[in-house]
Amino acid sequence: MKKSLLALALMGAFSSAAFAQSSVVIYGTLDAGINKTTNTANSAVLEGARDNNKLGFRGVEDLGNGLKALFHLEIRFEPDTGNIERVTRPLFQGQSRVGLQGGFGTVRLGRALTALQETSTQFEPWSGMPNVAGFQTDLMVAGYRSAVTGSGSDPLGTAGNSGNRFGNALWYNTPVINGFQLNVNVGSKENTGLATAIVGRGTVAAPQYPAGSLAQAYPYSVSATYMAPGTTPKYAVYAGTERNATEVKWHSIGAYYRPMPALKLMGSYGKQDLSHIRAINDSMKAWVLGANYTVGVGLVRFGYGQRDTDGEVKTKELSVGYEHNISPRTYIYLDLSQKKVPVAATPLSADMNQNHYALGIHHNF
Amino acid sequence: MKKSLLALALMGAFSSAAFAQSSVVIYGTLDAGINKTTNTANSAVLEGARDNNKLGFRGVEDLGNGLKALFHLEIRFEPDTGNIERVTRPLFQGQSRVGLQGGFGTVRLGRALTALQETSTQFEPWSGMPNVAGFQTDLMVAGYRSAVTGSGSDPLGTAGNSGNRFGNALWYNTPVINGFQLNVNVGSKENTGLATAIVGRGTVAAPQYPAGSLAQAYPYSVSATYMAPGTTPKYAVYAGTERNATEVKWHSIGAYYRPMPALKLMGSYGKQDLSHIRAINDSMKAWVLGANYTVGVGLVRFGYGQRDTDGEVKTKELSVGYEHNISPRTYIYLDLSQKKVPVAATPLSADMNQNHYALGIHHNF
Amino acid sequence: MKKSLLALALMGAFSSAAFAQSSVVIYGTLDAGINKTTNTANSAVLEGARDNNKLGFRGVEDLGNGLKALFHLEIRFEPDTGNIERVTRPLFQGQSRVGLQGGFGTVRLGRALTALQETSTQFEPWSGMPNVAGFQTDLMVAGYRSAVTGSGSDPLGTAGNSGNRFGNALWYNTPVINGFQLNVNVGSKENTGLATAIVGRGTVAAPQYPAGSLAQAYPYSVSATYMAPGTTPKYAVYAGTERNATEVKWHSIGAYYRPMPALKLMGSYGKQDLSHIRAINDSMKAWVLGANYTVGVGLVRFGYGQRDTDGEVKTKELSVGYEHNISPRTYIYLDLSQKKVPVAATPLSADMNQNHYALGIHHNF
Repeated sequence: MKKSLLALALMGAFSSAAFAQSSVVIYGTLDAGINKTTNTANSAVLEGARDNNKLGFRGVEDLGNGLKALFHLEIRFEPDTGNIERVTRPLFQGQSRVGLQGGFGTVRLGRALTALQETSTQFEPWSGMPNVAGFQTDLMVAGYRSAVTGSGSDPLGTAGNSGNRFGNALWYNTPVINGFQLNVNVGSKENTGLATAIVGRGTVAAPQYPAGSLAQAYPYSVSATYMAPGTTPKYAVYAGTERNATEVKWHSIGAYYRPMPALKLMGSYGKQDLSHIRAINDSMKAWVLGANYTVGVGLVRFGYGQRDTDGEVKTKELSVGYEHNISPRTYIYLDLSQKKVPVAATPLSADMNQNHYALGIHHNF
Repeated sequence: MKKSLLALALMGAFSSAAFAQSSVVIYGTLDAGINKTTNTANSAVLEGARDNNKLGFRGVEDLGNGLKALFHLEIRFEPDTGNIERVTRPLFQGQSRVGLQGGFGTVRLGRALTALQETSTQFEPWSGMPNVAGFQTDLMVAGYRSAVTGSGSDPLGTAGNSGNRFGNALWYNTPVINGFQLNVNVGSKENTGLATAIVGRGTVAAPQYPAGSLAQAYPYSVSATYMAPGTTPKYAVYAGTERNATEVKWHSIGAYYRPMPALKLMGSYGKQDLSHIRAINDSMKAWVLGANYTVGVGLVRFGYGQRDTDGEVKTKELSVGYEHNISPRTYIYLDLSQKKVPVAATPLSADMNQNHYALGIHHNF
Repeated sequence: MKKSLLALALMGAFSSAAFAQSSVVIYGTLDAGINKTTNTANSAVLEGARDNNKLGFRGVEDLGNGLKALFHLEIRFEPDTGNIERVTRPLFQGQSRVGLQGGFGTVRLGRALTALQETSTQFEPWSGMPNVAGFQTDLMVAGYRSAVTGSGSDPLGTAGNSGNRFGNALWYNTPVINGFQLNVNVGSKENTGLATAIVGRGTVAAPQYPAGSLAQAYPYSVSATYMAPGTTPKYAVYAGTERNATEVKWHSIGAYYRPMPALKLMGSYGKQDLSHIRAINDSMKAWVLGANYTVGVGLVRFGYGQRDTDGEVKTKELSVGYEHNISPRTYIYLDLSQKKVPVAATPLSADMNQNHYALGIHHNF
C-alpha cells in the first residue's frame, strides 16, 4: 500500500512527463584540454580533446520474456568550437541504431562502428580514444586512415565521413556462450553521398567506381571473441575481418592478459589488402603492444606500435599517458607521445619525429 | 504530512536537476528497415524507414486558471546515415513552436505542419507516415510533391525544405465545441532563404517571383473538423483549404467511419490550383480510399488512390501493410505497394509500375 | 528508514535510466513573436524573437571537499524556421564548456561568451538580449557589430560566427571575496576556419592576416566586478578589457544602482581601439543609460545610448519595453524602439530613423 501511495505521489510530483522521460537516458562525455604536436601544419599550443566528445540519448524497453527493444542516438561535437564533429560529419556521428535483444542475441539497424572496430577497442592501450597518443585510428587497424581513395570503412559515403563506421547496415551479436561471441555486420550497397569517382584500377576517363556508383559486393565486418570468466577477465582474444564497399579488406587479431588485476597487457596485429583497387603498393601491416596499469586512483597507459605501408617508410609510435581519477566520472590526463612519420604521408620534406603533449580534463555524464 | 516528507525525499534523491528537468519530456521515434523499390534510380536493397525518425523535446507549464504554456522542439534525422533529415533540412524539421493554451483554444508561433496537413493525417490509411506505400505526401494532398517550382507549402523557403510546413507562422486552434473544431494558420510574407527566382507566369528575365522576393499575399491554411463523441469516434469529417506564398491553392475534404471498433474506413478528395503561377496544366486532382483493420496485436493497412495531373498520365497506387505490435511502443512492419508512375514525373522512358517492399522495426520512446 | 524505503521505491520506479539522467538538466528558452522594423531591407511584418532561443544540457558532479565538475552544452536555434542560429552557426552556439569549481574558483575550457561579455549583460537594460530594442550587441560593447573586417571577438573563426565569443579558450573566475570577483579568459592562437584573408594594414597582395594565419598574440578578456551584499545588491560596478586575435581592443566600465528594490538604474561606457588593423577611423566610443522598473507582475525596461564611430555619423537609440509575467517562467512582451542609423552602416541613402515594434511570448523551461 505504501508503494501505491508512493506511485501516486510520484505521479503528482512529476506528472506524465517524468514517466515518459524515464525511458530515455541522456549520457555523454566532455573532454577538453590543451595540446601541442611538433612538426605539423599547426604546431602552436591548441585546445583539443583526447576522447570523442558526445551527447547521447538511449533507451531500453522491456518487452517481456527476456526480449528488449533498444536504441542509441549519439551526437558528436567539438567543445573548442561548439560545432558538430569536424563541422561536416552527421549529427549523430557517434551512432544511430535501433534493434531487438533477446535469447537469440542482439539485432540492430542503422549506422555505427563496424563489428571489427567495436571489438578491437578493448585490445588497444588507449581504449580506442582517437587522439595522437592512441593507436586505434592510425596504427591498430592498419590503413583505416590511409590517404588511399577508396580506403576507410565507408568509401561510398560523403567525403570527410569517419573511416570506421558502416551506414545503412545491420548488426548481429550472438549471445555470449561459454565465453565465445560472434559479431556479424553487413552493409547495403547504397551510395550515400560520394559525389566524386574513385579511379581505383580504372582510369580517370573510366574510373573503377564512377560518381554515385553502388558497391558491387555487400560490405561486411565480422569479429569473434573469447573472454575468460569473471567481471575482470584474466585474458581475452579476438579475430576479425572486414570488407568495405570498394572491396578493400582488413584482417585483425589481438589478445590481452592480466598477470595481476592492476595490470592489463595487450597486443594486436592487423593487415590491409588494397588489391581490389590498386595494382601496386596494395598492402599494409601493423602491430601494437600496450599496457594499462592501475596505481591507486591513477591509470598509466603505455603503447608502442608500427605500421608498415607498402612502398612507404614505416610509421613508429611510442606513447605514455596518465589519468588521475578525481571521481568515477571525472579525470585529469596527461599524454606524451612520439611518432616517426614517413614522408609520403606528410607535407614535410623528410622523415621526422612528431612530439605530442596533451593535458586535459575528461568528464562523463 | 506524508506528502511533504515525500517532497523532501524526492528533492534529496534528485536534486534541483530533476525538478528543472521534470518540465521537459524527451520523446521520439526510431524506425529502420530494409526496402526495395523497382524501376527507380536505385532499385537495390536499401536501408530506410517507414516513418519519420524524430528526437523531440516538449513541455507544458501550468499557469493556473486552465491556462498553459507549451512548446515543442523536434529533431528529424536519418538513422541509416546519422544525418539530420535529407542532410540539409532544419535541425528542428519536425516542428519548433511555442504558445498558450486555455479556454479560448491554442495559439502557437513558429514552424510546423500546416493546419490542413495536421488535420488530414488522421484520414490517411498510413496515418501520414511519409513512405512509398503511404499516400499522404504524394497523392492525398494533391500536388504537394509536384515538381512544379513554386508549389509546396513553403516556396519562398530554402530549397529542399519539406513541402507541407509553414515557417514564420501562427496557428490558432479553437476548443472542440460539440465535436467541431476550427484550425487557422497564417504565415508571414517573409522569404526565408529562396536564392533563385520562380519564373511562374513571368519570364526568365522578368520572373514572377524574383530571388529574395516576399509573398504578395499572406499564406494561410484552414481546416475544420467534426468528430462523433467518444475516445474512438464512430466517424469524423474534415474540410480544409490552403494558399501558399506563391498563391498556389489546395482544397481537401475527407471522412472516416468505423462500422465496428476494429475497422476504420476512410476516404479523401483533394484539388490543387496552380493558376496563379501557370497558364496551362494548372490543376491537379486526387482521391484516396483506405482501411485500417485491427486483428489481435496486429494492424492491417490498405489503401488505393489516384492523382490526375493536368497534362500528365494518372498516378495510381495500391498498398497493403501489416504491423505486428510486440509492445505498446514497438512493432515490426511489412509494406507492399504498387504504383503506376507517369512518364513526366520520372526519368524513365514509359509509364511503368514501381513495386515497393519494406520490412522493418518501429520504436517509440 | 522511511527514506531508504523511498530510495528503493524510486529505484524501482525509475530504474537506472533516471539515475543516470539525474546528472543532466535540460533547460532552454523559446521566444517567438511578430515584429516590424521600418527602413530596413525587409520592413514587412516578420516573425522573430527578442531573446536567444536555446535548448541546453548541463550537469554538476559533486567530487567531495567542495570540488565540483561542471559542463554546459547549449544549442541555439531559430524557432521561426527550425534552423540552428543563423543557419550556419555551430550547433552549440550558446556555449560548450567543461571545468572544475572549488575553493579556488572556477576553471573552464571550451567556447562561450568572453569574460567581458558575460559580465556586462548585467549592466544592460535588456539584460543582454540580442534584439533591435536592446543595446548589448550594437551599442554597449562598442564595435562588436562593426562592419570592420577583423573586428568582433573571433576574427579568425568561421565567417558568420558570433562576435562576442572566444573559441579554443580557457576561463578562470576567482571566488567572490568581500564582493569582489576577477574573471580571466585567454584564447589560443588557433585559426578555426577563416578561409579569407584580413587585409588590415597590409594590402590585398600582402594582407596583414593571410587566409589561415594564426593570431600573433594570445586573445584575452578580463573583467572585474564589485557587488554590494545581499541577493538583490544595492549597487555593483565592473571594469573590463579585451583583445581579440587581430589585436583589436575593447575597454568597458559600468555600474548599476537600486534607489529602491523595484528600480534598477544602470549606465556603461565602452571604447574600441582598431589601431592594430586600421590606420584611420580606428576608434569607437559608446555609452548607454538604462532602467528596469518592476510594477506588480510587470517589468518596464528603458534605455538610451549613443555610439560614436570615428568617421561616421553617430548611432542613437531610444527603447522602451514591457514584460507581463504570467508565471515565473513565461511572459508576454512588447518592445518599442527608435534608432537613428548612420549612412555608412546601411544601404540607405541618408541618415534615418528605424522604428521597431515587437510583440511576443518568452518561455523558459
